[in-house]
Amino acid sequence: MFQSVDSCLPSLAGELFDSHLRPAAAGSIPMSLVVIGTLAYDSVETVHDRREDALGGSAMYFAVAAAPYVRPGLVGVVGGDWNSSDMEMLKERGVDVSGVEVIEEGETFRWGGRYEPDWNTRHTTYTDLNVLEHFEPKLPDEYRSSDFVFLANAHPAVQMQGLAQVEAPRFTVADTMNLWIEIARPDLDALLTKVDGLILNDEEARMLTGENNLIRAARKVLELGPKVVILKKGEHGAFIMGEGLHFSLPAYPVTDVIDPTGAGDCFAGGFMGSIAAAGDASPAVLRAAMLHGTVAASYCVQGFSVEDIGKRSRDDYDERFRELVSIVTL
Amino acid sequence: MFQSVDSCLPSLAGELFDSHLRPAAAGSIPMSLVVIGTLAYDSVETVHDRREDALGGSAMYFAVAAAPYVRPGLVGVVGGDWNSSDMEMLKERGVDVSGVEVIEEGETFRWGGRYEPDWNTRHTTYTDLNVLEHFEPKLPDEYRSSDFVFLANAHPAVQMQGLAQVEAPRFTVADTMNLWIEIARPDLDALLTKVDGLILNDEEARMLTGENNLIRAARKVLELGPKVVILKKGEHGAFIMGEGLHFSLPAYPVTDVIDPTGAGDCFAGGFMGSIAAAGDASPAVLRAAMLHGTVAASYCVQGFSVEDIGKRSRDDYDERFRELVSIVTL
Repeated sequence: MFQSVDSCLPSLAGELFDSHLRPAAAGSIPMSLVVIGTLAYDSVETVHDRREDALGGSAMYFAVAAAPYVRPGLVGVVGGDWNSSDMEMLKERGVDVSGVEVIEEGETFRWGGRYEPDWNTRHTTYTDLNVLEHFEPKLPDEYRSSDFVFLANAHPAVQMQGLAQVEAPRFTVADTMNLWIEIARPDLDALLTKVDGLILNDEEARMLTGENNLIRAARKVLELGPKVVILKKGEHGAFIMGEGLHFSLPAYPVTDVIDPTGAGDCFAGGFMGSIAAAGDASPAVLRAAMLHGTVAASYCVQGFSVEDIGKRSRDDYDERFRELVSIVTL
Repeated sequence: MFQSVDSCLPSLAGELFDSHLRPAAAGSIPMSLVVIGTLAYDSVETVHDRREDALGGSAMYFAVAAAPYVRPGLVGVVGGDWNSSDMEMLKERGVDVSGVEVIEEGETFRWGGRYEPDWNTRHTTYTDLNVLEHFEPKLPDEYRSSDFVFLANAHPAVQMQGLAQVEAPRFTVADTMNLWIEIARPDLDALLTKVDGLILNDEEARMLTGENNLIRAARKVLELGPKVVILKKGEHGAFIMGEGLHFSLPAYPVTDVIDPTGAGDCFAGGFMGSIAAAGDASPAVLRAAMLHGTVAASYCVQGFSVEDIGKRSRDDYDERFRELVSIVTL
């Protein structure tokens, strides 16, 4: 179901289908937010605990995080080993899974990782691409009129393929990772001329631009095409920069980190979910969206997989949003 | 001279001698802000450049940073090698130097340091205590009625000795360092029961409390006595925590760091200077003071020693304060 837009979303709440938006096509419910990316089974080990084959993947985390704001359309691929209970959980969360392709004869993408005690160092123990290797996103018809699109971490050529199926997106943001910066730079450069925003972490920003100073790095990203860049610094917060826009905020003070996997994807989910709910990507909405992203990321790290965030209601989000506002307001 | 308090200082500007303050003693101009700490000649080497015997010391940096807000009284000791031109510079900056003791037959404290390219690692190349070894702060009479006191980094027993000479301080904040946490813990613990606030960096907070998580560490500091704790995270910003108070902000985005030496002391100078100018340490003033501290620290790192911040006027401070407000305001 669609969630209500409450007072924590500034300015454009209630104008979801305002004059700037194309009217909804007759006879269909358009998906306002679509995410294209990975679904996975992750095995994660921390100093305190571990999980085997827990629900993971960039687009899965994003969708679960965005669901309290709007009904996200999830585009990805899984194998015949995908648990029906996981699909049910996503549906109950309010995620539209009609864009999830199931390849019965294949196996779901699997990833394993281990964290050092300081959380800042992560070792990938294995990566089994499986059905992801030949992933070609196929958007259901009702996804193609989407206004807000998130291209979660995937090969930039796959991201481009997905984006091309959206008719006239109003605000598209892409994520990427060090691997694609290294081995698929021409595809990534081409993608960057087609998206409105790029979201990346400090390490990726430095690798992409060759600039150690993050402000300089962000400025260089803007020269590559995007109108806005969202730079995540993990426990040190995040900032957004664009023409006439510069907003920086600390992370929400989580005292008990359980598993940081997916925090960046959940940040993006809260960020884009709140923008889609506001129906606009004005500077005021983008600033507030940075707080919504921060809130989602904070719930994400409080549990393995989506064990914590998957249970968080819009009321939970709003409560922490208000707390974060009080912490960052002069 | 006293600087005017402008619109960037919220709420209590203009109430410098309000009903909460003891009236100024007849026939004397009380010093509203006193700093007790070190004066030094530093030799600093960075990847780009170096300086030999440049003006340094915790109290010196603090006083230069605070001077655009109020006339700080500086308490410290130097040797016969202290340059008269340095004393003149401090006077011209608006620092009261009547609390600086000159031991003609001694030599000024000297410190040498070298930074790694990432700025986060600093090697101390030498420490010559010289006249600092037997430093006993002696406050001039007109300093003793001070309302606002900063105990810059020094042995906690020396800090206590200085504090004891202030009759009825309204708001006292202490700094410390890893060395005193290690070798003078009983003195430090005693001091912490006598001050209103403790300002320290992430590493010191972890060492003092044994807590890796900085929020938990801050809470533990509050259990040691101070009513507020100001935790500095360098390029990652700072936060303040106390009863009913939690405010966090990112650092000002400096793109060209020249020398980080003294940044923490300058943060404290902007913080305490703005509080003394406001004449109050209410939560609203403390929040704004975190921005004033951030501004001062940002000018500090833009030059060796006080080469940059020493030339910055109240107008410069206010301009950057407004810019920082725009970056952190939702």
